[in-house]
Amino acid sequence: MSETPYQQLETRFRRLLSLRDAEAILQWDMATMMPGGGARSRGDQLAVLKAVQHGILTEPKTQSLLQAALDNNIGDGPEAANLREMQRMWGRATALSEDLVVTLSKARSASETIWRKARAEDDFALVMPHLEKYLSLLRQAAGSIAEKLNLSPYDALLDEYEPGGRTREIDCLFAELQDFLPDYLSDALARQSGEPPVLKPKGPFVADKQRALGVRLMKILGFDFEHGRIDESLHPFCGGTPDDVRITTRYDGADFTQALMAVLHETGHALYERGLPKDWRGQPAGQARSMGVHESQSLLIEMQVCRSAEFLAYATPLMAAAFNGAGPAWETENLLRLYTWVEPGLIRVDADEITYPAHVILRYNLEKAMLAGEIKAADLPAAWNEESRRLLGLTPANDRQGCLQDIHWFDGAWGYFPTYTLGAIMAAQLFEAAQNAVPGIPRAISKGDFAPLMSWLRENIHGQGSLLTSRQLLIRATGRPLDMEAYKRHLQRRYLP
Amino acid sequence: MSETPYQQLETRFRRLLSLRDAEAILQWDMATMMPGGGARSRGDQLAVLKAVQHGILTEPKTQSLLQAALDNNIGDGPEAANLREMQRMWGRATALSEDLVVTLSKARSASETIWRKARAEDDFALVMPHLEKYLSLLRQAAGSIAEKLNLSPYDALLDEYEPGGRTREIDCLFAELQDFLPDYLSDALARQSGEPPVLKPKGPFVADKQRALGVRLMKILGFDFEHGRIDESLHPFCGGTPDDVRITTRYDGADFTQALMAVLHETGHALYERGLPKDWRGQPAGQARSMGVHESQSLLIEMQVCRSAEFLAYATPLMAAAFNGAGPAWETENLLRLYTWVEPGLIRVDADEITYPAHVILRYNLEKAMLAGEIKAADLPAAWNEESRRLLGLTPANDRQGCLQDIHWFDGAWGYFPTYTLGAIMAAQLFEAAQNAVPGIPRAISKGDFAPLMSWLRENIHGQGSLLTSRQLLIRATGRPLDMEAYKRHLQRRYLP
Repeated sequence: MSETPYQQLETRFRRLLSLRDAEAILQWDMATMMPGGGARSRGDQLAVLKAVQHGILTEPKTQSLLQAALDNNIGDGPEAANLREMQRMWGRATALSEDLVVTLSKARSASETIWRKARAEDDFALVMPHLEKYLSLLRQAAGSIAEKLNLSPYDALLDEYEPGGRTREIDCLFAELQDFLPDYLSDALARQSGEPPVLKPKGPFVADKQRALGVRLMKILGFDFEHGRIDESLHPFCGGTPDDVRITTRYDGADFTQALMAVLHETGHALYERGLPKDWRGQPAGQARSMGVHESQSLLIEMQVCRSAEFLAYATPLMAAAFNGAGPAWETENLLRLYTWVEPGLIRVDADEITYPAHVILRYNLEKAMLAGEIKAADLPAAWNEESRRLLGLTPANDRQGCLQDIHWFDGAWGYFPTYTLGAIMAAQLFEAAQNAVPGIPRAISKGDFAPLMSWLRENIHGQGSLLTSRQLLIRATGRPLDMEAYKRHLQRRYLP
Repeated sequence: MSETPYQQLETRFRRLLSLRDAEAILQWDMATMMPGGGARSRGDQLAVLKAVQHGILTEPKTQSLLQAALDNNIGDGPEAANLREMQRMWGRATALSEDLVVTLSKARSASETIWRKARAEDDFALVMPHLEKYLSLLRQAAGSIAEKLNLSPYDALLDEYEPGGRTREIDCLFAELQDFLPDYLSDALARQSGEPPVLKPKGPFVADKQRALGVRLMKILGFDFEHGRIDESLHPFCGGTPDDVRITTRYDGADFTQALMAVLHETGHALYERGLPKDWRGQPAGQARSMGVHESQSLLIEMQVCRSAEFLAYATPLMAAAFNGAGPAWETENLLRLYTWVEPGLIRVDADEITYPAHVILRYNLEKAMLAGEIKAADLPAAWNEESRRLLGLTPANDRQGCLQDIHWFDGAWGYFPTYTLGAIMAAQLFEAAQNAVPGIPRAISKGDFAPLMSWLRENIHGQGSLLTSRQLLIRATGRPLDMEAYKRHLQRRYLP
C-alpha cells in the first residue's frame, strides 16, 4: 500500500526533527561538558546539521508533497494542524539559501565563543566586529524571510520564536506596561521601605547540598529523572528533547536562593517539554508552541507558584533542613519577602517582576534599531547606556553590566527578548484560569501537591503542543486572548495588597 | 575559479565526517549522561545521522566526482591517499541500501539496550531474539559488502575495523599464538608460584581521589584537558573527536589499580586521536588508521609502558601519596608483580597479557561460525562454554561470565575482536622500534618524562592518520611488516626472564 503525500511528509519531518533533537543535545553538551578546545569542530558539526535540515526542507520533493497534501484536503483535525506547522517551517527555510544558513550558524558559534571572553574581560571591542558581521548576515536573512512571508524584517525574526507575534501588538502591550509599571514600582518601593529589612540566610552553601535540595523540589514538582537531568552551566537553561530534558543551573556558595529559584524556573520549562503530546512526538505539531508559551510555563512555576506564600510555607522547612538553617532569616515570612523583593538594577536575570519588563523593552528597542541599521554595532554600548538611564534610571558602570550581559544577540537570538514579557503576562492569565477551574490548586501547593496544577497544565497547555495557534490555545485555556488584566491583578495582590 | 572534482570531494567528505563527529558525541552522551528514558529517541537520532551519511556517500554525484578525480590523476601524494580512503568509504556504503543501514542502526540500539538488562539479570533469553534478528540483518549486509568488494562475508566485516585485514592472515597469527602461548603460560605460572604472594593495597579508595590520581597521570602522559575530558561509564572507552576526546572509566572503591590502568589504556587511545594530523582534520586521510593500530596505541601505553618497572618506579610514590598508602603493598616491586600477575580467568577485560589472546580467539571462532549460520543465536551459550573449556580450561558458571560479558556483538561490532590481538602484537613491535630509535625512552619514562616517546609516536603513528596503509605504516615505523618477534621477546622478558 503506497503512502499518502501527508504520510510521506510525516516520515520526512520525523527525520528532520530527529536531527534537531541531535542538535539540541550537542548544544547542551557545548554549554555543560565540552572542553574549550572543542568549540571549532562543534561549530562545524552544528552548521552541517543545520544545512542538512535546511536541505530536507528545501528539496523540491518537500514542496510537491506539501502541495499534494493540501490538495488532498485532510480536514481540520490534528493532521491539518501538523501540515500547517510543516508549511510554516518550509516557508521560513526556503526563504534562505543553504550558504546563508551555514554562514549564519558558523558566525553565531564564533561570536558566542568570543562574547564569553569579551564579557569576562569587559571588552566590547573584542566582540564588536563579530556582532557587526552577524548583523549584516542577519539583515540579509531577515530581509529574505520578510519578503517571502510579507512581514517586516523584525517581525520575520520574531515570528520564528513567536509564531504569529507582530510588532504592532507588542508595541501596544509594551506601551501599556510603560504606562502603569512606573507607578506600581514607586508604590511597591514605598510600601517596602516601611517594612523591616529582609534577612539573607547565611552560608556557605555547598553546591552538593544545593543540588540535593533542587532535585528534591524538582521531583515534588514532577520532574522525571528517568527522562531528564540537571547539570551546571554558566547560564541556566532548559535544553535537550521531550524524552531527555536537560536543565542547568549555577551555584553560588554564598546564596542558595537565586540558584534554587532558577532551578524551579527551568523545571517549569522542562515540565512543558516533557508534557508535549506523546502521539505527536517527532512531528511539528508535537513541538512547543512558542517561546512566549514556553516562558509562560517557567514563569508560572517560578513567579506565580514558587514565589508565593503557599509554596514557600511548604518549601521553607525543606530549605532550612537542607542547610541546617535556623533563626528569623529562615522563616517563611522572611523568605517570602526576600523572594518578592523589588529593586531596580542593571542585570536582567536578577531583576524583580516589576522592573523586568523595562529590561526587555530596552533590548526590544535596541534590537529593532540595530536591525534597521539605525544603530551600528560600534554604537551599541552608548545606546544601551542611554536606554538604561531612560528606562531603568540607572547607568551601567561598564559593558559587563550593560550590553555584554546577555548571550542572546551574540548567540543569534534576535527577536527573542519580547517573548520573556509575553510569557510573564501569559503566566498570570493561565494561573488565574487554572485556579478558577480548580480552586483547590493553591491549597494543594501549600502541601507540596502539584498534581492538580500539573493536571490542568497538561490538559490545557503541555499536551496541546503546536496543535493550536497561541491565540487559540489561550482562548481555549482561559476564555479570552492575551490581555493585561490577570497580570495587573497578580502584581497588585503581591506588591500592593 | 571553479573547484576541481577532488576539491569538491574534500568539501563533501568534510561534511560527512562532521556528521560522524556529531554521532561520536551523541554516542558518548548515551554511555555517560543520557537518562534511560532517552534511549529510544537517541536511537532515532543516531539512525537518521547514519542515513544522512549514507545518503551523502551514495549520491550519484559522489561517484561521478570520485571517477573524475581518479581520471585527473592527482599523483601519489597525500591527496591520493585521501582519495583512496574516500573510495573505500564509498565502496562500503554503496553496497548497502539506506533502509538496511537504518534498520541495522535501530536494531543495534535496541539490542544494546536489552543486553544491558539481560547481562544485569543474567538472562540470555531476553536478548536472544534481538541477537538473532541482528545476525540475520548482518548476514545480509556482510553478504552485500562481500559481493561488492570480492571478500568473504567475515572479511567484509573485519575490513571495516581493519582495512586490509584478512581471515587467512589472522588465522596464521592466531595459530602461531596457540602454538607458543600455552607453554609460556605454564612456564610463567610455574615461575610465579615460586614467588611470595602479591599484596593488594587496602582501600577504601574514594572515587574523587582515584579520579584526581588518574587526571594527574593523564597530564603527565600528555592528555590535553583543553581538548578532552574523563567521565564515568559502565565500560571504559575512548570516544569523541580528535579536538574533543572523551575517555571514560569506572571506579571500584575496593581496588584502585584496575581503574587506574584502564584510564592509562584509554589515554593511549586518546593521545592517538589527539595526535592525528591537523592538516587532515575532517578528511578521511586524517582519521585513525584502523582499530588494530588504535589498540596498539592503548596497549603500548598500558602494557608496554605503564605495567613496566620503569613507569611503576615513577608512579608508585604518586599512588601511595594519593591514598596515604604505606607498607609493603605500596612498594614498586609489589605493584609491578600485581600489574603483571598471570591468572587464567573467565572475563576478557580482566585477563592478563598471556591469556588475553585466548579470549579473542574464542570470540573470533564463534563470530565466524555465527555469521556463517553454523551456530544459531539460541546455541551461543553452549557453544561459548565449550570454547571456553577448550581454550581457557574454564567453564563459566553463568552467561554473565560467558557470552553476555561483552557489549560488542550486541552493539553491532562484528569482526572487531581480532583487532585487540593485532594491536597487542603491533604495540610490542612499535615500542621496540621506538626504543631502538630513541634509546633514552625507558629512562625518561622512569622520570615521568613522556616527551621522547610521544615525539616518536606523533611522528611515526599518530601524525600519519590514514595517509599510509597499516602495512606501510608499520614498515615505515619498524622496518618490517607485522610479525610475532617483538611480542615474543616482550613476553619472555617480562614473564620468563
